[in-house]
Amino acid sequence: MSTAHGDVETPAFMPVGTQGAVKAVAHRDLEAIGAEILLCNTYHLYLRPGDELIARRGGLHRFIGWSKPILTDSGGYQVFSLAARRTIDEEGARFQSHLDGSRHLLTPEKAADIQANLGSDVAMVLDECLAHPSDHDTARASMERTLRWAHRARERFLALKSSVVDRQSSVTNHQSPTLTNPGQAQFGIVQGSVFRDLREESAQRTVEIGFEAYAIGGLSVGEPVDTMYDVVERTTPCLPADRPRYLMGTGTPEDLVESIARGIDLFDCVLPTRNARNGQLFTSEGRINIKNARYAEDDRPPDPSCGCYTCRTCSRAYLRHLFASGEINAATLNTLHNLHFYLDTLRRIRESLAFGRFEKFRLSFHQSLSRQLHDP
Amino acid sequence: MSTAHGDVETPAFMPVGTQGAVKAVAHRDLEAIGAEILLCNTYHLYLRPGDELIARRGGLHRFIGWSKPILTDSGGYQVFSLAARRTIDEEGARFQSHLDGSRHLLTPEKAADIQANLGSDVAMVLDECLAHPSDHDTARASMERTLRWAHRARERFLALKSSVVDRQSSVTNHQSPTLTNPGQAQFGIVQGSVFRDLREESAQRTVEIGFEAYAIGGLSVGEPVDTMYDVVERTTPCLPADRPRYLMGTGTPEDLVESIARGIDLFDCVLPTRNARNGQLFTSEGRINIKNARYAEDDRPPDPSCGCYTCRTCSRAYLRHLFASGEINAATLNTLHNLHFYLDTLRRIRESLAFGRFEKFRLSFHQSLSRQLHDP
Repeated sequence: MSTAHGDVETPAFMPVGTQGAVKAVAHRDLEAIGAEILLCNTYHLYLRPGDELIARRGGLHRFIGWSKPILTDSGGYQVFSLAARRTIDEEGARFQSHLDGSRHLLTPEKAADIQANLGSDVAMVLDECLAHPSDHDTARASMERTLRWAHRARERFLALKSSVVDRQSSVTNHQSPTLTNPGQAQFGIVQGSVFRDLREESAQRTVEIGFEAYAIGGLSVGEPVDTMYDVVERTTPCLPADRPRYLMGTGTPEDLVESIARGIDLFDCVLPTRNARNGQLFTSEGRINIKNARYAEDDRPPDPSCGCYTCRTCSRAYLRHLFASGEINAATLNTLHNLHFYLDTLRRIRESLAFGRFEKFRLSFHQSLSRQLHDP
Repeated sequence: MSTAHGDVETPAFMPVGTQGAVKAVAHRDLEAIGAEILLCNTYHLYLRPGDELIARRGGLHRFIGWSKPILTDSGGYQVFSLAARRTIDEEGARFQSHLDGSRHLLTPEKAADIQANLGSDVAMVLDECLAHPSDHDTARASMERTLRWAHRARERFLALKSSVVDRQSSVTNHQSPTLTNPGQAQFGIVQGSVFRDLREESAQRTVEIGFEAYAIGGLSVGEPVDTMYDVVERTTPCLPADRPRYLMGTGTPEDLVESIARGIDLFDCVLPTRNARNGQLFTSEGRINIKNARYAEDDRPPDPSCGCYTCRTCSRAYLRHLFASGEINAATLNTLHNLHFYLDTLRRIRESLAFGRFEKFRLSFHQSLSRQLHDP
C-alpha cells in the first residue's frame, strides 16, 4: 500500500494511537518492532487538542513526530461508543463531548474536514455504526444512510483536494480546513450488518462511488466469530483486488490469520495494547495473565520463542512484580511484547505468502495455539 | 567508585528505582542516558515481592535485569515516612506494612540480612531518621542510637561475609540470608541533625567503626537550604578523602552543584522522576510546567539545548497534549528528559573537574538559572 508518507507492506496491522500516541510505548519502539502505519482517532484529536491546533502545527505527523503513514478513522465509532446524548439523523451525529459535555455535530463533511486538518495519509468516511443484532430492515436503512453519507464525504474530500492552494492559505479561517497532507487518500466503508445481500450491495455501491480503497465496518461488534469470518469471506470478492481491503477493529491473532485467508490486507485493534495494560500477554503458546500467582517465581521470559526487548530482558517473575506493584513500566513492557507479537505474526504471514506457504503457516499457527497454556 | 558490578564515575547521581524499576523508563533508556548506578528501596522490595524471593531468583541484579551497580537503602527512611503504627526502640523499628497492615520488625541486623538477599553492590546501615527540627539533646540521643545500630549492622555484615559459603548453601532456610553478591560493600551514615558538634562527632565515630564508605543522612528533611549546605560543608572534611561521600535524598540541580563544591560524590533523589510525572521539566533555563496553557502551541522542544530523545522528537505542544490527555507516554518522555538533564549535568561537572574548570561551570550554571523562565 503506497501512501504520501511511504509504503506499507501488506497484510499489515496498525497499532492504535488513540490520542496521537500508542499508549505506553514511544514512537521509536514502534519503529523498532516494525510498525509501518499508525491509526489515530479523529474523535479524540478533534476534541483535544483540536484539529485546528494540529493543522497550525503542520498536521498530525509533525505534531506527534511520526514520519510514517497514519490512518485516521472518521470519529463515528467513538461518537457511538463514548460520547454522551448522541442522536443520529440524516445530517450527521449530534453528541456531547465525554470530556466536558460540549455539544458537537459530526457530519460526513465535518469528518472529512477534520481529517484534512489532521493530514492523515488515509482518511475514513463517516459511516453509521449499527448495534448488533439488528433486523434486515434496520440494517438496510442504515446501509442506505451510510451510502448517502459516503457520497457526501467523497464530494467534500474532492472539493478540498481541488482547492488545495486556497485551503492552505486560509489557515487562520476557522471555517475552512487546511489540507495539511495533499496526498491524503480516502477509504469507503462497507456496511450491512450480517446480511449477505446487504454486504454485497453495500460493497458494489461503495465501489461505484469510487474511493482509493475500501474497508469492512460493522464487524467485531458482538456477532459470533464464524459469522464475522463468513461476512468477510462474502465481502472481499466484491472489493477491487488491486486495492487494500481493511477490516476495521479486528481482532485476535487468530482473527487476523483467518481474515487474511479471506482476503483482508489491513487491520487495527486495541486488543494487543489494551490487554497488555491489563496484564494479558499474547504468546506463541497462547495468552498468559502475568498477574497470575503461578508466575511469581517463573524465571522464563513471557514467550520463550520471542525476540522482543521484554522477552530478551525480563522474566515472568519480574513482569508479575512490576504489574502487582502498579509500575508504569509494566504497561510499557507488556505493550511492547504484545505489539511485537502482532507485528511479527504479520511479518511471518507476509513471508509465508511470498513463498506460497501461507496454508502451511495457518495450520501450524492454529496447532501452536491449540497446545496453548491453559491460563485461567 | 568501584563496585562488584563495575565502576561508577563520580560525582554521580543515582536514579531511584523504588520497586526494582525506575518509574516510567526501561533499563535500556537509563543505560542510554548514562546511568551507571541505581538506587532501590529495601523497604518496598522486602514487602513485595520479598527479599527471599529475590534471593531465590539469584539476587536483585538478575531479578530486575540490571547488570550495573545497585545501591540499596536500609529501609529505615520508608518505615519512618510510609509505614503505619511505627515505634522505635533500641532493638529496631516496629511497623505495619502500608500494603497489607502486616507487622514487621526492622533491626540493624535484619536490614543487613535483607540487603544480603538483595545482593546490592552497596548496602546502607539502618539509621534513625530524626524529624526536623529537633533539639540538641534529642539529636544527640538519636545520633548515639544510630551509632549503636551502626556497630550492630557492621557486625552482622561482617559475619555474613565470613560465612559466605555456609549462607549460600542455606537458601531454603528462611532464617539465614543468602549473600547473593559476595562483593557487597556497606556504607555508614552520619547523623546529628543541624548541630555541627554532633555531625563532627557522628562522622568521627562512624569512621572509627569502619565502613567501605560513608553517607550523610538526615538532611533534605525540611531544614533551610543554607543550613543543609553548611552541614555538608562541615561534615565532608571529617570523612575519608579516598572514599565516596554520599549525600542521601538530595536534591535540586542547584543542590547537586553546591554539594559537589562541598565535597560530595554521590546523590540520589526522586525529584527528577517524581516531578516528571507531575509535568515539571528541568531545563537549562529553569523549570517549566508542561501543563501550562502557554505551551499549547509551542513548537519548541522542552529544552532547546538538550539532546535527549524527548527534546529531539517532541514539542512542548505535543508533551502538553500527552500530559493533558493522561497518556502514559507523558510520564515516560518527561522522566527521560529530567533524568537526562540530571545525568548530563553530572557529566558536565565531572568534565569541568577533570579540566580544573569547576568554579567556572558553577558560576555559569547559576547564571543560566537566574535567567530562568518564570513559569508559575
